[in-house]
Amino acid sequence: MGKKLFRVYVAVSLDSYVARPNGAVDWLDDYDPTEFDFEAFLDRIGTLIIGRRTFDQVMSYGEWPYGDRRTIVLTSHPLGDDAPENTVAFGGSLMELTDALRNERIDNGDVWIVGGASVINQFLFANMVDQLDLFVIPVVLGEGISLFDKDTSHLRPTPVSTQIYESGVVKMEYRLK
Amino acid sequence: MGKKLFRVYVAVSLDSYVARPNGAVDWLDDYDPTEFDFEAFLDRIGTLIIGRRTFDQVMSYGEWPYGDRRTIVLTSHPLGDDAPENTVAFGGSLMELTDALRNERIDNGDVWIVGGASVINQFLFANMVDQLDLFVIPVVLGEGISLFDKDTSHLRPTPVSTQIYESGVVKMEYRLK
Repeated sequence: MGKKLFRVYVAVSLDSYVARPNGAVDWLDDYDPTEFDFEAFLDRIGTLIIGRRTFDQVMSYGEWPYGDRRTIVLTSHPLGDDAPENTVAFGGSLMELTDALRNERIDNGDVWIVGGASVINQFLFANMVDQLDLFVIPVVLGEGISLFDKDTSHLRPTPVSTQIYESGVVKMEYRLK
Repeated sequence: MGKKLFRVYVAVSLDSYVARPNGAVDWLDDYDPTEFDFEAFLDRIGTLIIGRRTFDQVMSYGEWPYGDRRTIVLTSHPLGDDAPENTVAFGGSLMELTDALRNERIDNGDVWIVGGASVINQFLFANMVDQLDLFVIPVVLGEGISLFDKDTSHLRPTPVSTQIYESGVVKMEYRLK
């Protein structure tokens, strides 16, 4: 049984933003996740961790894109009746959540910390991320919501691979532990 | 005679900053430019374009690191008597400067737009940069002076190569035209 990895897998602009200042990700519309083998990545994921605002944003798009994978929504408020299957609300500490997931005795796949940026930063700050896959979109936004904040300036990521896709996207794969 | 390239060749943090908020680049001290074949790059450079503040900053370090290459300092004030050989002050328009350099009849190497960020952005804004070499340092700053600003959000760079160095630095080479 392999080690369960906690992963950040995210698209950023060339200037390292995950969204425009208002949260919009329209600049991703021209890029097709199938180019990045997103399905193969998702096949390795057993659990999604997602912030409430990001969850509500994804829900507003219509069909839930992540199938019936266990999804943990970080929130202190109950989810609506329309929440996808296997979705639970969690309002406790991240440490508690991470410990519980690491101690599961079954090999149920990796954990994807979906976002938003503040959720990702909380996990990065607490050194709870094992792997960081950045998909650098060849677009400059000039302003926006940064992937990283001041709380994560202790990080010293180790690059393990890079890849250039046809569309001009560059994948940068980093280990964090 | 090859085309004279206008190049940006710059180290950025993983979050795309070229300096801390106060301009400090102490986080670069652990990285050795010889690892990136900086000398080979410099051999191809015939002309440096540098902003006045960056020029003064480099001068304050002591020895001028760029030999006797022609150096054009963007400034409306005269340079001091201690200015390195072949250094000239230029206070005109960037368009005028770029045209003059492109029209030189001799093969005197590429042009390096050294910085700072505001000078680089003026050239990017005016579509006067041919090639962008980013050296992504495996350090998160969390805040700082961005390489890009809102004026450069029209850019659609094309990646041509990537390279991972022993130190964890990742080179990303982009064409801009």
